[in-house]
Amino acid sequence: MFDFTFHNSTKIIFGAGKEALIGAELHAAGITRVLLIHGKNSVIRSGLLDRVMTSLKADNIAWTKFGGVDSNPLLSHTRDGIALAKQDKVEAILAVGGGSVLDEAKAIAVGALAAEDVWQFFIGQKVERALPIFTILTLAATGSEMNGNSVITNAQTRQKYNISSPHVYPTVSILNPELTHSVPLNYTAYSAVDAITHVCEGYFTKQPGTHLQDRLVEGIIKTVLETTSLIMSEPTHAKARASFMWAATLALNGLTPAGIGAYSFPNHMIEHALSAIYNIPHGAGLSIVMPAWMKWYCPQNPSQFTRFAREIFGLDSGTAGIAALEQWFVTIKSPVRLHEVGIPATDIEEIAENAAGLARQWGIAELYPRETIAEILRLAI
Amino acid sequence: MFDFTFHNSTKIIFGAGKEALIGAELHAAGITRVLLIHGKNSVIRSGLLDRVMTSLKADNIAWTKFGGVDSNPLLSHTRDGIALAKQDKVEAILAVGGGSVLDEAKAIAVGALAAEDVWQFFIGQKVERALPIFTILTLAATGSEMNGNSVITNAQTRQKYNISSPHVYPTVSILNPELTHSVPLNYTAYSAVDAITHVCEGYFTKQPGTHLQDRLVEGIIKTVLETTSLIMSEPTHAKARASFMWAATLALNGLTPAGIGAYSFPNHMIEHALSAIYNIPHGAGLSIVMPAWMKWYCPQNPSQFTRFAREIFGLDSGTAGIAALEQWFVTIKSPVRLHEVGIPATDIEEIAENAAGLARQWGIAELYPRETIAEILRLAI
Repeated sequence: MFDFTFHNSTKIIFGAGKEALIGAELHAAGITRVLLIHGKNSVIRSGLLDRVMTSLKADNIAWTKFGGVDSNPLLSHTRDGIALAKQDKVEAILAVGGGSVLDEAKAIAVGALAAEDVWQFFIGQKVERALPIFTILTLAATGSEMNGNSVITNAQTRQKYNISSPHVYPTVSILNPELTHSVPLNYTAYSAVDAITHVCEGYFTKQPGTHLQDRLVEGIIKTVLETTSLIMSEPTHAKARASFMWAATLALNGLTPAGIGAYSFPNHMIEHALSAIYNIPHGAGLSIVMPAWMKWYCPQNPSQFTRFAREIFGLDSGTAGIAALEQWFVTIKSPVRLHEVGIPATDIEEIAENAAGLARQWGIAELYPRETIAEILRLAI
Repeated sequence: MFDFTFHNSTKIIFGAGKEALIGAELHAAGITRVLLIHGKNSVIRSGLLDRVMTSLKADNIAWTKFGGVDSNPLLSHTRDGIALAKQDKVEAILAVGGGSVLDEAKAIAVGALAAEDVWQFFIGQKVERALPIFTILTLAATGSEMNGNSVITNAQTRQKYNISSPHVYPTVSILNPELTHSVPLNYTAYSAVDAITHVCEGYFTKQPGTHLQDRLVEGIIKTVLETTSLIMSEPTHAKARASFMWAATLALNGLTPAGIGAYSFPNHMIEHALSAIYNIPHGAGLSIVMPAWMKWYCPQNPSQFTRFAREIFGLDSGTAGIAALEQWFVTIKSPVRLHEVGIPATDIEEIAENAAGLARQWGIAELYPRETIAEILRLAI
C-alpha cells in the first residue's frame, strides 16, 4: 500500500427510468438553466431526449440544446459548445449520451468559465474551476460518469489529449441500464475491452504486492467477461447489462488505483494515437494494442501476468493468460491486429511518433520512447 | 442488480504522518473552531494529540478538548459533548480515535444543531443537519471514517441504537496506518471480525445473483484474513496494517451493498444487545454471534454458503466454510461462545428480548422474533 487521496463525490442514481429524476436533481442543486448536450440521433429516436426535457420542464429548468458530439469528440465542436454556454449563460452542463458526450460536456464545463481557449487545459494548464456537470449515461464503458477525466481530439494537430481534474467530476450521474440494451454488439464488445483495459493499466504497471486492489480488479474483470458473454447471446439480458454497467463505472472511478502507488496508462497512450489519426472506436484500438503491449511487457512483471492467468482464466502461465485474453477479444469480434481496421504496417512510425508526444505529456517518455512504441505496435501487425 | 443510490463524498487522506494536514484541511473548509474529541489516554501518551494540536495551531484553528469517550460510546457522555459544542459555538467536530470516538463525534455533530435531545434521532427522528465532521483514525474496524452511521449506547435503557444519515459522513478522514501499529492483538482480532461481519451481512442476506458485489466482498474478506494473520505474527507489519485499514474502510462505505437490493444486519442486531447489556467489545460479540447465526441461517441460502466456503477457504460445503471461519476466530483468539465472555446461558431470554427491540427498529421483527433470536443464541452456548 502506498499513500493516496481518494475523493469522489459524484452521486450515482442507478436503475430503470431514473432519468425522470434529472429535473429534480438539478432543481435541488439550485440550477435553472443548462446546456443539454447529446450525440447524433439515437437519443432523439429512442425518445430519451424527450423524456429528459419533460423532466426539465416539470422542474422549471430551462435548456439550450446542443447535439452532434462525435464518438471521438472534437475540439472544434467543443469550442462551439463553449460559445453557446457562454452566450446563453447556462449554470450547468447536462450530458445525455455515452463517454464521448460526457467527455465533451466536461471540456465545455471548463471552457465556459475560462477566458483562454479550452485546448490550453489539455496541453498542461491547470483547471481551476468548471460549471457543474450532470449526466445521463447511455453507454457503459468509459467511466466518465464517475471520474474527473475528459479526452478530446484536436483534429488539426491530430492530438487526442486529456484533462484530469477534481473540478470535472459529475455532480450527479444517472445510470439506467435499460438505456444500454440497444447498444450494438460491436460497441458492447469495444466497451468491454475499454473497461478491462482501465483496470489492467494499473494492475500490471504498478509495483506488485497490493493484493486488495488486485482482487478488486480481478472481480471487475471476471464480471465484465461473464456479463459480456451473456449479452452477446442475449443483448437485452437485464441483469448482465446492469452488472456490466456498474462494473464499467467502478473500473475507472479511482477505487482500484487507490493505494497502488505509481502506475501508467501505456495502452491508452498508444491507442489515443490510433484513434486520433484513424478515428477508430477507442475500444477497437485498445483490443489491438493491449495484447501487443502485454506480450512486450510480460517479462518486466512476470509474477503479475502469472497471477492474471491463474485468477482470470485458471491458466498457469502469463503467456497463456495473454493468449486467452486475445482469444476472448476475437470471440467477441473486437479486432486484435492493425490490418483489421485498415491500418498498414507502414504507418507504424507515424503512430509511434504521435504516441510519443502523449508519452511526454504523461511523463512516461523515458519508459516509452518512439522506438519502443513502434516495437510494441509491430507485435500487432 | 437492483436500483440504488451511491453518494459518498468523504475525502480520504491515507498515509504515514498525514495527520499533520488536519489544520490545513479545516482551514480550507473555512473552519475556525472545533470540538476536539478523543477517547481515554492512548492518544495523549502516543503524542498524537499533541501533533494534532500543533497542526491546528499552525492554521489558526481554535479548539475545545473533550476526552473520555468509552469503547461503547455512551449517550450521557455524548450529551456532555453536545452541551460543550453549543457553549463554545464550535463550527465542526474533530474526532481523533477509533470507531467509538468517531461515532460519538457524529452524534454530537447532530445534537449540536438540534433543539431536542439527541436520543430522539436514535429512536426514529430524521436527521436534517449536522456540523461538519473531520476524523483522524487510530483503529481500523468500524468503517465509521467513511460512512453515515453512528452507534450510541443508552446505559439507562440498555439500548445500543444507531443513526444512519447522509449528514454525518465525515468531510475529511485521515487514515495513517502507522497509528494502528500499536493496537493490541486482541483488539486487532475484534476489528478483523467486525470488518468481515460488515461485508457478510449483505453477502448472505441479499438475493443471490449479484456476482460483482460478491467478488468485491470476497476480495475484502480474503484481504482481512491474510493481513490479520501477518499482523498476528508481526504487529508492526506496515503493509499488512495498511491493507487491513483500507479493507476495513471499504467493508462499510456503501461499496459492497450498492446494487444488491434488500439485505439486513442480523449479526449486528444480536451483538448490539450483547454489548449493550455486558459492555463487551463489539468484535468479540460478533465472533460469538456470527458462527451461531450462520449455522441457523445456512439452510435458507445454501448456495451462497457453498460459494463462501469455496471462494474463501477452498472448501466444498457451506457447513465446512462456517466451521473454517469459526476455527479462524479461535486461531486469532476471538471468543466464539457466550461463556468465554462470562455470559451465562440463562441470560439468553433477556438478550433476545433486547435484540428483538432492535429488530423492530430495523424493520426485521418478522424474520427475527424473540424466540428465533434465542434459538440462534443457544447455538453459541
